[in-house]
Amino acid sequence: MSSNLTRRGFMNTAALGAGATALASPALAQGGTELKMLMCWPKNFPGLGTSAERFAERVSTASDGALRIKVFGAGEIVAPFEVLDAVASGAGDITHCTSYYWFGKDPAFVYFATVPFGLTADEHFTWLKFGGGQELWDKLGAEHGVKPLAVLNTGAQMGGWFKEEIKSAADLQGLRLRYPGLGGQMLATLGATPVNIPGGELFTALQSGTIDGLEWIAPWNDLAFGFHRAAKHYYYPGFHEMGHTISSYVNIDVWEGLNDAERSILQSAADAEYATSLAEYNARNLAALNTLTSEHDVQLHRWPDDIIAAMQEVAPEITAASAAKSPMATEIHENWVAFREEQRQWGDIGEYANAELKEKG
Amino acid sequence: MSSNLTRRGFMNTAALGAGATALASPALAQGGTELKMLMCWPKNFPGLGTSAERFAERVSTASDGALRIKVFGAGEIVAPFEVLDAVASGAGDITHCTSYYWFGKDPAFVYFATVPFGLTADEHFTWLKFGGGQELWDKLGAEHGVKPLAVLNTGAQMGGWFKEEIKSAADLQGLRLRYPGLGGQMLATLGATPVNIPGGELFTALQSGTIDGLEWIAPWNDLAFGFHRAAKHYYYPGFHEMGHTISSYVNIDVWEGLNDAERSILQSAADAEYATSLAEYNARNLAALNTLTSEHDVQLHRWPDDIIAAMQEVAPEITAASAAKSPMATEIHENWVAFREEQRQWGDIGEYANAELKEKG
Repeated sequence: MSSNLTRRGFMNTAALGAGATALASPALAQGGTELKMLMCWPKNFPGLGTSAERFAERVSTASDGALRIKVFGAGEIVAPFEVLDAVASGAGDITHCTSYYWFGKDPAFVYFATVPFGLTADEHFTWLKFGGGQELWDKLGAEHGVKPLAVLNTGAQMGGWFKEEIKSAADLQGLRLRYPGLGGQMLATLGATPVNIPGGELFTALQSGTIDGLEWIAPWNDLAFGFHRAAKHYYYPGFHEMGHTISSYVNIDVWEGLNDAERSILQSAADAEYATSLAEYNARNLAALNTLTSEHDVQLHRWPDDIIAAMQEVAPEITAASAAKSPMATEIHENWVAFREEQRQWGDIGEYANAELKEKG
Repeated sequence: MSSNLTRRGFMNTAALGAGATALASPALAQGGTELKMLMCWPKNFPGLGTSAERFAERVSTASDGALRIKVFGAGEIVAPFEVLDAVASGAGDITHCTSYYWFGKDPAFVYFATVPFGLTADEHFTWLKFGGGQELWDKLGAEHGVKPLAVLNTGAQMGGWFKEEIKSAADLQGLRLRYPGLGGQMLATLGATPVNIPGGELFTALQSGTIDGLEWIAPWNDLAFGFHRAAKHYYYPGFHEMGHTISSYVNIDVWEGLNDAERSILQSAADAEYATSLAEYNARNLAALNTLTSEHDVQLHRWPDDIIAAMQEVAPEITAASAAKSPMATEIHENWVAFREEQRQWGDIGEYANAELKEKG
């Protein structure tokens, strides 16, 4: 231990400050800064909500309680689809939600959540940190009064649940599917009808036959939702969501009002939680999948080849058409496409080549 | 912004503390805790050394300078292979090195660096956080007077550099190769002779023909070393190192003397830097590889199938024999093998299945 004058750094300082004046001591005990985090899912929802709590815990502990995050579930302060507006206007301080819900504000937002045949969790983080992604995101955020942080990734998702087995592209014809965003548009080219249903109504919609299928996340979350009680056919791979980044947008005035230490604590907590949340999904998905197949008669299927081929065919056009709808989306799309190509080339030498060995090993 | 009494939390507190007594103010300006970090590579070495500096910067900024890490390169205080002993004995506070250098102390250490046909970067982090890996590592660390943290991963490595093209297993016969650890033992089953040479002498050894080939890291680091000036045949995939974790061991008394805030700052900085370093390798490797092949006549080869098959054949036996050498290694090996199998099963549904689509896409 190398300690110049005293150990325990700012903690001793805080204690000293607490005793220094009567005025200051309540601020130390209960004061500091508290940020209201508005989530678009329920409190303690497995994976999404629990990671938000862990993020808050990291920030609070690292700052010795001086910077705290109070987590609010969907509907506690505003409705799920309103959390970004609420934070931009100051009714909250920081969101915890998926960026593709803000597609209507600007299609550029989808690049910071997920795009079909897009980036894996690692690739997305690489794009943000070293591919120019964060700079583009900051620019987009500034237009909406917020500073963006990537705080979670679900990893590879599943293709979802279907009441009837899908043996070929023809079987999608006429089906009503809850498949949001660009993935839904892609399935529509094969004759399916994408419908939008709030998360809380999904199970009932599937059970009652209002919809014929849906995608949600991956086994750990899907098992908790109980979709296996309404449908038995479960598809992979989730070509529409090869990774899904969850983001926190901080009110820009709040962000700029923080000092360097506070911003650093938030940034490291965000980076740390991105990796930790991904690890948690990757750790819990297999056990949940095994439970689904062995205890609940769920049949696991790989998507039929003709459907995958059709999706690969239409994906570039649909994504490009979406990107053309705003200058910001156009700029981001161009950077993102080039980056994805580079990552795929390196992947062929690196992790994809390793994955191939494991299949054999 | 929701602020109960005052904004800026502990920073205002620190300022208040500074003015409170004359005695306290120098401690605030220059005091606090400074940890000596002993690396086993040069200062500012690309990737490894630069990530250590970024880790130090995160800790210092988050604590407003109250907890600082001073980074020392190999040889500045002790020789590279002595950093763990130096930290355990208190001559330093925290290491930055690969755990497989401590194989001689206990073969259990290799599981926290890399094992042939082992875990990818994400899988390793998942094992530590949610597979019981960190608990086992803490137990191993306690036996050696240190608290372990995973602070970096290089991602997928390359199979290395060879002066002559390797067309089949027969071409390895009689070659002298710098291939440390279990990977070298595996190649020895095909008639190669593994030799151990310090990093600083590798280029000269390759150029002079003292060795016929070597493995180092991946294109970004390998280009900087200039191996392409001594050998032209570059192999992938790096089956011997599918990911390589770099660890920091903190002197156990130092770790236990830190308060909760300081430990939290170190832990989040470690988690954040693990993800960030991986992203930097993944971002920089392709450009370096392209430079090697297009400007330096390097020929990129996939390992011949018969060599990969032979390595897959001998790997389990060699790894198990190594693990049998200590009770700690035996315990860890058992947990690790089961975890790897689960991750591979989930990978087949998740990321490996996606990688396959990308190959086609």
